[in-house]
Amino acid sequence: MNKQTDQNRLELDMPRVGQYDFTAAPFQCDLTGRLSLGNIGNQLLNASDYHSNARGFGLTTLMNENRAWVLSRLAIELTNRPVAYEPFHIDTWAASAMRTFTKRNYRLTSADGHVFGYGTSVWALIDTDTRHPVLLTDLKNGSLEKWIVSDEPCPIAPPSRVAFDGDGELVANVKTGYSDADINGHVNSIKYIEHVLDTMPMTQILSHEVYRIEAAYIAEAHAGDTLQIFKEEKTEGQISFKVTKEMTDRYDFDRYSNEICRIMVFMKKK
Amino acid sequence: MNKQTDQNRLELDMPRVGQYDFTAAPFQCDLTGRLSLGNIGNQLLNASDYHSNARGFGLTTLMNENRAWVLSRLAIELTNRPVAYEPFHIDTWAASAMRTFTKRNYRLTSADGHVFGYGTSVWALIDTDTRHPVLLTDLKNGSLEKWIVSDEPCPIAPPSRVAFDGDGELVANVKTGYSDADINGHVNSIKYIEHVLDTMPMTQILSHEVYRIEAAYIAEAHAGDTLQIFKEEKTEGQISFKVTKEMTDRYDFDRYSNEICRIMVFMKKK
Repeated sequence: MNKQTDQNRLELDMPRVGQYDFTAAPFQCDLTGRLSLGNIGNQLLNASDYHSNARGFGLTTLMNENRAWVLSRLAIELTNRPVAYEPFHIDTWAASAMRTFTKRNYRLTSADGHVFGYGTSVWALIDTDTRHPVLLTDLKNGSLEKWIVSDEPCPIAPPSRVAFDGDGELVANVKTGYSDADINGHVNSIKYIEHVLDTMPMTQILSHEVYRIEAAYIAEAHAGDTLQIFKEEKTEGQISFKVTKEMTDRYDFDRYSNEICRIMVFMKKK
Repeated sequence: MNKQTDQNRLELDMPRVGQYDFTAAPFQCDLTGRLSLGNIGNQLLNASDYHSNARGFGLTTLMNENRAWVLSRLAIELTNRPVAYEPFHIDTWAASAMRTFTKRNYRLTSADGHVFGYGTSVWALIDTDTRHPVLLTDLKNGSLEKWIVSDEPCPIAPPSRVAFDGDGELVANVKTGYSDADINGHVNSIKYIEHVLDTMPMTQILSHEVYRIEAAYIAEAHAGDTLQIFKEEKTEGQISFKVTKEMTDRYDFDRYSNEICRIMVFMKKK
């Protein structure tokens, strides 16, 4: 039996929903003593990759084929977060696949099986040379199809269109660097969420509980780029952020900024 | 048998050196595909707390007694770092205890037992009401003493005095926020290291390998504070950073800045 057949057998034995175990490490907790929002976000990304990697279409496997997953939309909704030392699980599955996009959902549960959050995301498959989208049916002969789970509930609203009425207020200039970079040298998707949360006054952070975060990713920034963060607070407890990148290319007509992502933070008074 | 006796029995069964298992999660890796420097630092802090917590003097236990560990010095030296998905171990032990300070050392090993790094740190025990140092002999009737391991090797130089000849060059103003906070609301010790690494040009990051980091922590900053980062590069491959905090107290004579920590980064050309 050759290695390829082994791998196929291994993949076929896998359940379609993957479950991954994590612990809220004390130095990954925030000032409420619970796993920080950024660390929850990164564990969702890690679970995504553990799931796809074990099934033959992970980050590092695709790298060798000049393919990459690019996160396009993300929504996370939480009723609670694990406290320091608390173990928890992330279940994740591919909920649909259409042309160049796949939807991946998440369920977060405590050790006793209590659900404390859900997530939903949309990923695009791209060619890393051309940066153009690739049809999912071209991915390992369409093998993504067999992993789709369409009947598993994920009862949260999908990411909405993060609307801006005006230009918003410029609240921060962030020079990105080493710690912003993911394995591809791009700014990590969750880092944008951390950067926008970090522009919020600590009095607001301390008096409110963030229960939902939405992100729409438009273009990629590279570690080293300078980002501008614009804010618009239309409704109490619902803040829109727009992240743009300073353009340095002198041939770019709109040279001052270029939109990277939009993030909406939903919070309620404690 | 009451709960207290159970706990004592549990503690006495513990080895003096604790070993903790980690994995280089793909979204905690840097653009070289290996666990990022910041994430290695935080796993050292997590290992410290897992070790002390299991032995009765962890962060959360001490909180109830108005005591806290404050990191004073840290040096990390690495010959390699784990790649994405790679499991690794951190061994840690208390190497000495004198008056109000204890030294904690670390050994980082890959799954096959190969050592790829060491760390050494100095921690002070403080009273969280007065912020004054507390004698270690007052900690649970001096029980720290029985955990000391003085014969375990840690063959790296202790943290040196991070010297500045002048004032250095101001390279960044960093407004800290939510993601900077640790469980106590202070800026996480490793976050300072991430912030200074993030001031370095990406060309320098990409062409060099950081093999040693030293930090001397002088005062605490709170999430929400604005930090200034000053840099002095005396020797090729050895950069000193000074982090200060903007003072807002109008009774403070030296109101413009207050030193928080000094960090030295050692790097070599790839």
